[in-house]
Amino acid sequence: MSNITVSLPQNSYEIAISSGSLSQLGAKMKQLKLGEKVLVVSNPEVFGYYGDTCLQSLEEVGFEIYQHLIPAGEVHKHLQSIEKIYDTALANHLERSSTLVALGGGVIGDMTGFAAATWLRGVNFVQVPTSLLAMVDASVGGKTGVNHPQGKNLIGAFYQPKLVSIDPDVLQTLPEREFRAGMAEVIKYGVIWDAELFSELEQAEHIDSFESIEPELLNTILARSCQAKADVVSQDEKEAGLRAILNYGHTIGHAIESLTDYQEYVHGEAVALGMIAAGEIAIQMGSWKEAAANRQNKLIAKAGLPTTVSAKVKVKDVLEAIKSDKKVKSGKVHFILPKKIGAVKITDKVSSDVVKESVLQLIGNS
Amino acid sequence: MSNITVSLPQNSYEIAISSGSLSQLGAKMKQLKLGEKVLVVSNPEVFGYYGDTCLQSLEEVGFEIYQHLIPAGEVHKHLQSIEKIYDTALANHLERSSTLVALGGGVIGDMTGFAAATWLRGVNFVQVPTSLLAMVDASVGGKTGVNHPQGKNLIGAFYQPKLVSIDPDVLQTLPEREFRAGMAEVIKYGVIWDAELFSELEQAEHIDSFESIEPELLNTILARSCQAKADVVSQDEKEAGLRAILNYGHTIGHAIESLTDYQEYVHGEAVALGMIAAGEIAIQMGSWKEAAANRQNKLIAKAGLPTTVSAKVKVKDVLEAIKSDKKVKSGKVHFILPKKIGAVKITDKVSSDVVKESVLQLIGNS
Ligand SMILES: NC(=O)c1ccc[n+]([C@@H]2O[C@H](COP(=O)([O-])OP(=O)(O)OC[C@H]3O[C@@H](n4cnc5c(N)ncnc54)[C@H](O)[C@@H]3O)[C@@H](O)[C@H]2O)c1
Ligand SMILES: NC(=O)c1ccc[n+]([C@@H]2O[C@H](COP(=O)([O-])OP(=O)(O)OC[C@H]3O[C@@H](n4cnc5c(N)ncnc54)[C@H](O)[C@@H]3O)[C@@H](O)[C@H]2O)c1
Ligand SMILES: [Zn+2]
Ligand SMILES: [Zn+2]
Repeated sequence: MSNITVSLPQNSYEIAISSGSLSQLGAKMKQLKLGEKVLVVSNPEVFGYYGDTCLQSLEEVGFEIYQHLIPAGEVHKHLQSIEKIYDTALANHLERSSTLVALGGGVIGDMTGFAAATWLRGVNFVQVPTSLLAMVDASVGGKTGVNHPQGKNLIGAFYQPKLVSIDPDVLQTLPEREFRAGMAEVIKYGVIWDAELFSELEQAEHIDSFESIEPELLNTILARSCQAKADVVSQDEKEAGLRAILNYGHTIGHAIESLTDYQEYVHGEAVALGMIAAGEIAIQMGSWKEAAANRQNKLIAKAGLPTTVSAKVKVKDVLEAIKSDKKVKSGKVHFILPKKIGAVKITDKVSSDVVKESVLQLIGNS
Repeated sequence: MSNITVSLPQNSYEIAISSGSLSQLGAKMKQLKLGEKVLVVSNPEVFGYYGDTCLQSLEEVGFEIYQHLIPAGEVHKHLQSIEKIYDTALANHLERSSTLVALGGGVIGDMTGFAAATWLRGVNFVQVPTSLLAMVDASVGGKTGVNHPQGKNLIGAFYQPKLVSIDPDVLQTLPEREFRAGMAEVIKYGVIWDAELFSELEQAEHIDSFESIEPELLNTILARSCQAKADVVSQDEKEAGLRAILNYGHTIGHAIESLTDYQEYVHGEAVALGMIAAGEIAIQMGSWKEAAANRQNKLIAKAGLPTTVSAKVKVKDVLEAIKSDKKVKSGKVHFILPKKIGAVKITDKVSSDVVKESVLQLIGNS
């Protein structure tokens, strides 16, 4: 059991990590004095497993509960799904003091958060992440949003939850591939922020599935990852500077995702590839040692994540895609490069040639 | 010329009021270091009058400018219009550091603000209000949003502009009825907050049109109204308490607007009627003197605003509509009632009978 506070100038909140806590969600929310009505947003998959437990815990303490299901999958992460949440909110007369609960992975979390941010100009919002990626990344930090037909997460808002409630037990039903994808973000925190987390992962016997991982290690992973993200976002709530380091591996990762039409790799897999490429760039720029990069890449492999990219991906397309990334400022591409395990720097001084070289190597590996 | 600062824990900003300032907008924005790209959002009416001056001032100082027009009118204040702004933003590769400028009345201001709040999770936003209502009310305070098919302003966000730039000269082309509607909100500030503003209005020879009002008085009206709103929102950015007083006259006003399908009264006119009804309620509740109410009602008449409601409006429908107002908390209707000119209180203790009585009187007047 771990509790982490995300400290912000306004709207600080708690991340509560505890095995079996889903059945205590209602009690926890009651303590926060969140109004009477609660709308639980989920998808049929996750709701099938955990809807009853969730609703029951809310009912027990007297909340007036409603539910709204959105079909699973990133393809439904658009404004039209948000409009349907609005309709449910309206039909049930939600008030400013009412609460939207996101019960699901990052897709549900991002959409529910955006609906909460924008319905009545903001109602209460509680995150109950059920995928590893959502637990360690998407549910913390206040980024919410949906995709535009022409780009991911282009529409959204910064909006902080009142609570993030994590029950590691729900990971038992998460597909293994999704578990591994989440582990990519965990490894990311190790590289950019927390060398101790990195060594714990190295020392562990297994990190590639819920079944094989030690429950205690899982707790550590969740707590340290959330702490890392909390540290970073506390210092930079609206992504003015530091927060960019969370995009380590994401610049090339996003390019790979979009070039394969989001069909070939799940996000974490693409990030794993992006980290390998970024590590290679760092080596070529002289900021990182090859030995350190090897440690990173070994950990990625240990988590069951890909280390080579399909030859379908063409280097020149990657370069092109990077330039149209929404993080591009004044036309300059910013890269996050490791200096050592646990620390990175941001630079816009990477030449296309170096990027090319490192992507070629990723493909060459295959 | 007046400058007012809206002080907030984060995101404080300036309201600059100055005759002829539209042609200086670019220079002013340059000082704020707002990035390179500027997307001006307006409607064809307003843009026809002021588009050139606005664009030229931006061009002069080197901004890369784009424009996006939305047909005039509240009927276009919906999510689909926002999606079109997104498309323009995307087509022109707007970045986080880019700026959306709202050149228009409250409809354009609310929509542009919401688009700015939600594109890339927030780009810079500058308000250039061109209606009196937008100058004294809609452009200050950070409320942005659009209508849901079933209710006004149900979708939105709190999002602060970087600057509100007011050029009173543009009011010369504003239809007289719209000028008067804005004056209703000015009178509101007199009643709820600023007794001195109230007496200035009483002492003025004319307040019912741009042509007849003294330029100096107009400056005072703009400055004191913005100051009143700034005072209130500074103390309560997210409408947790105090800010509710800005809804004086709006509870019954909204009911009247919606019952007449937004066809019969413009917003300010409905608010004027709502203030008269709220004044009557306050008298009946013993919190306000009849003499004070008469002063208020006289000022409303002097501004050329209606003081009686069309007999089409049925009392029981008003009562019904009030209950479904989005400001209703836990089923209780909150009323803002004057205590004296310049001060109000909030109460949820108004019986339906008293509301009925005061609305009947509004209709009886006709
Ligand atoms: N807001 C942020 O800061 C942030 C950060 C990273 C990612 N994201 C977003 O998160 C999304 C990805 O999140 P994700 O990886 O969780 O994807 P997801 O929400 O699509 O979940 C992946 C799959 O696992 C299923 N699932 C989730 N929990 C389960 C459980 N306990 N048991 C069985 N199945 C379960 C889901 O139904 C889904 O099919 C993307 O849209 C991404 O943009 C947001
Ligand atoms: N955000 C807030 O805090 C807030 C507060 C009050 C009202 N509002 C919103 O503001 C809107 C009403 O604003 P409004 O009264 O400005 O309406 P509006 O924007 O529709 O403007 C009224 C009319 O005047 C025209 N116009 C505006 N400026 C002009 C000019 N200088 N010359 C000629 N024509 C001009 C417009 O084109 C329009 O036809 C509503 O949607 C309301 O919900 C928002
Ligand atoms: Zn990620
Ligand atoms: Zn108003």
